[in-house]
Amino acid sequence: MHFGKVLIFGVGLIGASFARGLKAAKAADEIIGFGRTPKSLKAAYDLGIIDEVGINPGADVREADLILVATPVGQMPEIFQRIAPYLGAHTIVTDAGSTKGDVVEAARAAFGDKIGQFVPGHPIAGAETSGAAASRADLYQGRKVVLTPLLENAVEDIEKVKRAWELCGADVRILDAETHDRVFAAVSHLPHLLAYALVDEFARRPNADQLFDYAAAGFRDFTRIAASHPEMWRDISLANRTALLAELDRYGAALMRIRQALVNSDGEALASIYANARDARQNWSH
Amino acid sequence: MHFGKVLIFGVGLIGASFARGLKAAKAADEIIGFGRTPKSLKAAYDLGIIDEVGINPGADVREADLILVATPVGQMPEIFQRIAPYLGAHTIVTDAGSTKGDVVEAARAAFGDKIGQFVPGHPIAGAETSGAAASRADLYQGRKVVLTPLLENAVEDIEKVKRAWELCGADVRILDAETHDRVFAAVSHLPHLLAYALVDEFARRPNADQLFDYAAAGFRDFTRIAASHPEMWRDISLANRTALLAELDRYGAALMRIRQALVNSDGEALASIYANARDARQNWSH
Repeated sequence: MHFGKVLIFGVGLIGASFARGLKAAKAADEIIGFGRTPKSLKAAYDLGIIDEVGINPGADVREADLILVATPVGQMPEIFQRIAPYLGAHTIVTDAGSTKGDVVEAARAAFGDKIGQFVPGHPIAGAETSGAAASRADLYQGRKVVLTPLLENAVEDIEKVKRAWELCGADVRILDAETHDRVFAAVSHLPHLLAYALVDEFARRPNADQLFDYAAAGFRDFTRIAASHPEMWRDISLANRTALLAELDRYGAALMRIRQALVNSDGEALASIYANARDARQNWSH
Repeated sequence: MHFGKVLIFGVGLIGASFARGLKAAKAADEIIGFGRTPKSLKAAYDLGIIDEVGINPGADVREADLILVATPVGQMPEIFQRIAPYLGAHTIVTDAGSTKGDVVEAARAAFGDKIGQFVPGHPIAGAETSGAAASRADLYQGRKVVLTPLLENAVEDIEKVKRAWELCGADVRILDAETHDRVFAAVSHLPHLLAYALVDEFARRPNADQLFDYAAAGFRDFTRIAASHPEMWRDISLANRTALLAELDRYGAALMRIRQALVNSDGEALASIYANARDARQNWSH
């Protein structure tokens, strides 16, 4: 598998690592970066991550074999609208959004008849670090990338996107968009919301300094994801709000069961919940 | 500061690391270990962590300069009752319990007139690893140890316990027991409960395997503490249930505010909470 011209919209950690992965595999002739801030594009260019800083996407989109949109999901609708008129007959568009239902909806609205050229994707490689400078050619090595293909996609186009990620070292999985959004609401979006809620709540208290002073290793790991990008997680929360609300309510019910055990001083119920969690967590190897 | 005979009840990670720290500082003549399981005491003896496996505490307690009770808090009342009749006039007892209100209450019940000889303490050095084999002489290096002295304590006795921990490398702080329990309900006990609740809830679902399959680094760190010892955390939850319930309700209210923002698709409110948490978490250096 080889790509001629590859366009990347949003040359942050995710987009830049994809570029580096393809370059390391010698799988692309030319990689052009687009983004909102000329300064960070220039930095990516200076680091050799992209071959060119894109200015006006028209001609480049027409000639592109592959376009990755790797911005926060909130910016994707506008980018899809912007590139839709220029898509070449052979151009495949994919994305790196953490939610898929909303991205597919925006893609349908923008691409219309050409929706078959859009293969939705989600690389599972978030980090609190961000920006092209933090990117690595091996970021996707052994990481999962989920594709949520559309009925309109040609099998060979899905295969091309799959191969592009595999060239970056990824383990590519296929899910439908709805299942994707439900699974990630549970295992990723909810934990972020829970960690943000805890740290925000502590930070607003009069004795916040005292609390943070005595917080130790358990707190450190539990709240690591609360250092994630607020704008990105606002977008994800809104984009996947239906599934996220369902997860939040389910979790709230679980907390109420523990609360009841505490109120009743029911040590057996607590120990049973804790032991079940401990066993599951220990059996889960990442 | 030098101690003659030191007794340690519960030679697990915490007790054994204290023994190793004192030995490394050449601050004790003899360290005797007591515990429920002869096998693990024998192992601690074989590793050179204790000088003797204690059998009948009577005579040893009478001669001891310092006694550390480092069992789960649920076992402390019985141990206090067992040693109370034998306390020498110069013997100081301290503990390593994660909660202080309940431990002090149990100590008052057991020691009666001799309560002044009990200086309550809490080393902040939990870990998912446990057992004497995981212990280290430098476990307390740079870690906080909180003492919550009683009005009945002699200043020089508080000072002796403080020095013992400092010889292990710890940064010793003083709090009253109630403040201690409120602070640790927030920064330690609540996060454990929240992590246990999440993993238990996932593990009970029909699609648990799928969820754990797609869980990634964020989930890994968020739930690391759910691998902690269920019996120990049941004891802590019950011992500190009043403060823990207050924290849980406060957190529930915070979740309800986020829920409302999600229901209203209020991106501004979400971004403000997330950004406040991100700033606080980034400013917190551990």
